[in-house]
Amino acid sequence: MYQKEFLEYLEEKKWVREPKNLYEPIDYILQLSGKRIRPILTLMAADIFSGEYQKAFPAALAVEVFHNFTLVHDDIMDDAPLRRGMQTVHEKWNLNTGILSGDAMLILAYQYFENYEPNTFLRLAKLFSKTALEVCDGQQLDIDFETRNDVTIEEYINMIRLKTSVLVAAALKMGAIVSEAKEKEADLLYEYGLNLGLAFQLQDDYLDTFGNPETFGKQVGGDIIENKKTFLYLKALELANKEDKEKLLFFYKQKFEENSIKIDEVKRIFEKYDIPSIIQDLIQKYTTASFSSLEDINISSENKQDLKNFGSYLMARNK
Amino acid sequence: MYQKEFLEYLEEKKWVREPKNLYEPIDYILQLSGKRIRPILTLMAADIFSGEYQKAFPAALAVEVFHNFTLVHDDIMDDAPLRRGMQTVHEKWNLNTGILSGDAMLILAYQYFENYEPNTFLRLAKLFSKTALEVCDGQQLDIDFETRNDVTIEEYINMIRLKTSVLVAAALKMGAIVSEAKEKEADLLYEYGLNLGLAFQLQDDYLDTFGNPETFGKQVGGDIIENKKTFLYLKALELANKEDKEKLLFFYKQKFEENSIKIDEVKRIFEKYDIPSIIQDLIQKYTTASFSSLEDINISSENKQDLKNFGSYLMARNK
Repeated sequence: MYQKEFLEYLEEKKWVREPKNLYEPIDYILQLSGKRIRPILTLMAADIFSGEYQKAFPAALAVEVFHNFTLVHDDIMDDAPLRRGMQTVHEKWNLNTGILSGDAMLILAYQYFENYEPNTFLRLAKLFSKTALEVCDGQQLDIDFETRNDVTIEEYINMIRLKTSVLVAAALKMGAIVSEAKEKEADLLYEYGLNLGLAFQLQDDYLDTFGNPETFGKQVGGDIIENKKTFLYLKALELANKEDKEKLLFFYKQKFEENSIKIDEVKRIFEKYDIPSIIQDLIQKYTTASFSSLEDINISSENKQDLKNFGSYLMARNK
Repeated sequence: MYQKEFLEYLEEKKWVREPKNLYEPIDYILQLSGKRIRPILTLMAADIFSGEYQKAFPAALAVEVFHNFTLVHDDIMDDAPLRRGMQTVHEKWNLNTGILSGDAMLILAYQYFENYEPNTFLRLAKLFSKTALEVCDGQQLDIDFETRNDVTIEEYINMIRLKTSVLVAAALKMGAIVSEAKEKEADLLYEYGLNLGLAFQLQDDYLDTFGNPETFGKQVGGDIIENKKTFLYLKALELANKEDKEKLLFFYKQKFEENSIKIDEVKRIFEKYDIPSIIQDLIQKYTTASFSSLEDINISSENKQDLKNFGSYLMARNK
């Protein structure tokens, strides 16, 4: 329901104004349908605390526009030609358009908060700036990790917390803020989102290697091909014997024309050291931590169940 | 005085935190000394309306950090290797660092407004978002103009208004807002800044071609070498006879190894059609318009004189 209404709200927005070369790419990336998880969370949270989820549309839009800003700039940094099967902005237009349209989206996100009165505006913008800067930090750490050989699991978890989870958490908290929830309640919801976001990202790591090729949506094994130092890789390096460790390091030092052998070998090592069940346990741990934050929030058990159901729905996708 | 104190305030800021690769470039670009015109204007305006210019330091810093954000991203778009004689950020580090550090600077700028109470925060952030988006619009128009052959003088003036003047105007208005000036007074100061900014940018166009090579700081003739469609070029196209027009179009269609002939020929055409005096008249017109906005502001004539002096100082540079 929230998704449908959010899409209608999005549809109503007339993005494209002059100069067209700046705003058409914004319209393009926002139409490339995603799951709209973050704005849905904002609307859900607002609904729970005040019943007036419509009030949260501008904040939900800010979150979605910000998220798409990160996609546009990240795609440049990753040199990615495709996003959800369509050309990325810098590929369809050019580098400069990608940079500048992204910049404009970040500013537009702030502007949507102007729909709220001064105190709410301040709370939203403050949370938003803190979160946005954390996302930048996370992206920089992700880049730094590419050329480092001593990344710890702890550092990795911190990186995905910054790059992915804080925005999920902030999306929820913004809904609470719009509905004038107490700071303590809003913070518990934030905690719920933070742990759910971590579980979600680890699930993504897991599925990228062990997902069902027919339902995963992306190429299974993509992270292995790209030498991404995910949890699976870092944990395997930690547990592997000398020989397997050297094998992993060898495979992750270069890119190959033909990847099937690499993928098979790396998966075999992951399985040998039980990495799939280790990551599943960790995902379960974060999911449980997430749901337990809900216990102390002063909302109906029905609402709590809705949030749990949404969490379970997210975690169950494409398994 | 304002400049010295602002530099001290800037010095105190400890930019660099983890991840270092994100914040060191920010420290670097902010230390590359510029004239700090915009933050000085913010402090001046605050001083005029309340005497408490110290209150305006965070807003002044926001303006300066935003301005430097535009420099970092513009340098990428222009593929510029040098800025004030030093390596640009994307050149000293790399493209991704330039993009991401720039993004972080835009967010940091908003964060400085958190030093103010909710109503002031809202006024500042609203003006800032509007201005920042206008600057993006201006940059996009500037890019669009590179490949267009039908740019009018009116469009050009609109482009430099967006790309340069609105930030000068907003810098002043922010100082007024911090000092809780009335909206009407703040708007008159904005008008002063807007016209001064236009005069300033046209002066820059003039000096780039007709400035004294010993004091101009940049290479005289740079705009001609780069085929920049400045006021001088657009006005000359408008006034030139068929032969001179074709010559101009010929020279601006390509880049040359050796530029002295091109520069001499183009300057000769500019002079033939009196462009230097036409642009000087226009600069005078905007300067006069700028100063006349001051007449109606409810501030002491001493303060008005200070603002005029600052304007004259800006316009007199490097002549």
